[in-house]
Amino acid sequence: MKNFLYYTPTRVVFGKGAENDTGKLIKECGGKKILIHYGSGSVIRTGLLDRIIKSVHDENIAFVTLGGVVPNPRLSKVYEGIELCKKEKTDFILAVGGGSVIDSAKAIAYGVSNEGDVWDFYKKTRVPSSSVPVGVVLTIAAAGSEMSNSSVITNDATSEKRGCNCDLSRCKFAVMNPELTMTLPEYQTESGCVDIMMHTMERYFNCGENSEITSVIAEGLLRTVIKNAKILLQDPLNYNARAEIMWASSLSHNGLTGCGNDAGDWACHQLEHELGGMFDVTHGAGLAAVWPAWARYVYKNSVCRFARFARAVFNIDIEEDEKAALAGIDALEAFFREIKMPTNIRELGQEVNQGQIKTLAYNCSFKNTRTIGSVMKLNVQDIENIYTQASK
Amino acid sequence: MKNFLYYTPTRVVFGKGAENDTGKLIKECGGKKILIHYGSGSVIRTGLLDRIIKSVHDENIAFVTLGGVVPNPRLSKVYEGIELCKKEKTDFILAVGGGSVIDSAKAIAYGVSNEGDVWDFYKKTRVPSSSVPVGVVLTIAAAGSEMSNSSVITNDATSEKRGCNCDLSRCKFAVMNPELTMTLPEYQTESGCVDIMMHTMERYFNCGENSEITSVIAEGLLRTVIKNAKILLQDPLNYNARAEIMWASSLSHNGLTGCGNDAGDWACHQLEHELGGMFDVTHGAGLAAVWPAWARYVYKNSVCRFARFARAVFNIDIEEDEKAALAGIDALEAFFREIKMPTNIRELGQEVNQGQIKTLAYNCSFKNTRTIGSVMKLNVQDIENIYTQASK
Repeated sequence: MKNFLYYTPTRVVFGKGAENDTGKLIKECGGKKILIHYGSGSVIRTGLLDRIIKSVHDENIAFVTLGGVVPNPRLSKVYEGIELCKKEKTDFILAVGGGSVIDSAKAIAYGVSNEGDVWDFYKKTRVPSSSVPVGVVLTIAAAGSEMSNSSVITNDATSEKRGCNCDLSRCKFAVMNPELTMTLPEYQTESGCVDIMMHTMERYFNCGENSEITSVIAEGLLRTVIKNAKILLQDPLNYNARAEIMWASSLSHNGLTGCGNDAGDWACHQLEHELGGMFDVTHGAGLAAVWPAWARYVYKNSVCRFARFARAVFNIDIEEDEKAALAGIDALEAFFREIKMPTNIRELGQEVNQGQIKTLAYNCSFKNTRTIGSVMKLNVQDIENIYTQASK
Repeated sequence: MKNFLYYTPTRVVFGKGAENDTGKLIKECGGKKILIHYGSGSVIRTGLLDRIIKSVHDENIAFVTLGGVVPNPRLSKVYEGIELCKKEKTDFILAVGGGSVIDSAKAIAYGVSNEGDVWDFYKKTRVPSSSVPVGVVLTIAAAGSEMSNSSVITNDATSEKRGCNCDLSRCKFAVMNPELTMTLPEYQTESGCVDIMMHTMERYFNCGENSEITSVIAEGLLRTVIKNAKILLQDPLNYNARAEIMWASSLSHNGLTGCGNDAGDWACHQLEHELGGMFDVTHGAGLAAVWPAWARYVYKNSVCRFARFARAVFNIDIEEDEKAALAGIDALEAFFREIKMPTNIRELGQEVNQGQIKTLAYNCSFKNTRTIGSVMKLNVQDIENIYTQASK
């Protein structure tokens, strides 16, 4: 087992009615004047924002609001939030939404608390030294940002999508009521399931040492998400299925599914980040569209692990490792299709030409200055090959 | 799935050499003068205490020490610690040891930080309102106290063994180097494995609703502990097996294996607490000695769950639930025997007479004022029946 650090200080309040505790939770964190940050009008339409505001108001906490966060959240909105928070002298940020809103809130929190341009932290030319506290009322199970240390922002001036990982941004609390996810369109729900699975799978696949207990937790989590993603196709109002998926979203990205493993791979996330930057695709769907091509390109470097995955997650009973590995890739691809997810870039609704593929690969390799992935270290040519394969 | 709270703020530093970070970790927590609390001379003999002191000294942190904590830690030692901390004006407590030392440290931390008699919190006549911060260098994988909110103390004046559960006592950090557990006698190692399993099993067995993802995590954890407990019988210096068991000890009792489940049972822990209070037995061994009698007494109230346990943990392929359930109980009992654990009170090395059984049952039921357990609510007569069965 590899040495590891594990730090998940987020206080989770999970279940029906949990959002009514929001005000109290902010008060416990010392919040006196807060920014309530959200995305589209759905939190207004469903009445959620009103309930949150009532809960905040009941605790005599002052607030300002900033909505309009979009999927693949924009740096321009982050700047707007930083300015507003500085002007209003807020001391806490409440994100009401999914990964995009939380990531935007984390970026604002860095920006308020540190001098200079917040984009530096995403370009990785500086690291943040502090952060305003952030709490979240979660409305989409997907990104896992509610317990993770990561935040991904798209620079709308340059189309670059970049992440910043730092424990300072771990949320103080996460309010998770699975009922709040019931109004999501099917496509968003199922994209979320893929995103959740990929957070575990990017930690699962590697060429090195792995922890047994972490592996069995990962496999159990994946089986649970697969089972409940199928249930939600037929029965989107199934509370227990929503709850299983929602809790899986946090466990999948809070670090648990990587403890003691060799470094994860994360190539698919990076391949998808470029797609997301260029075409504004739904993150989970973008991951589903690149994974099969990635897996078939790299599996030979980690046949045992892919074979174990096939057996433990899909109950594939094939003795020969290579055949089992390939059957596992087929099974996951078939599952993606079953939940109406794309399994290549075309099915994602994007025709990509050769020039665009070259641009994607060039950007993904940071202008040919880095490789991505660990199962196989992928250079700019490998990346181009995978994008090409995924576009057929 | 049931509503739940989950809060595990402990910073885990896991792996070889982790103890060398102790001083830095205390400094990050703001500790300036600390109590180093430990148990027997083994931490001195192995040189661990010296290395810890060096690490503390390197950060210019002042310290006082208090050793002599025994298994089933004593209230008298807690009082001694409180007095010492108050006199020396310490601001942080470092536990170097296993569950007993950590639990004693937590009790001292409550006592220093709250007025009045600390035993009140264990009698549950008051709740603590604050706590001095506690950190731990773990040397035994068993109690899970390094990430749990619980502390169990034995009042040596009355022979009562009582627990206090409160999030204030969650450790600030836990330093976990599996190598530090390699010097443990086999009996302590294997008792620890039982304790770890029971922390998950007491959350697993109930008559109500359960979370699927929590169930599969629990089952995976149990399979991992079973596998590695057997490895350590043959190969006690096996680093990976030590590491799997050590990480399982924390995950088993930090709340993860109960999220979304109906209330756990905990009857076996309470049955064992009385044994521990009367005879000073090793906690894990005491649990192994009462579990089979408990399981056969109550399983009919939760046949499905016991059957699922049998199939998922021991791969028992019996279709009929009741037969599968009984086969699972047999399998766990056989496993206890295989790792040289007692499966009844006699094998624990205790002859218990009828009068003592009556006393144990009377005390365990708090003088016939409470029932214990949830799979079956056990009154004083049920408790007596189980002790009797476990003494045959």
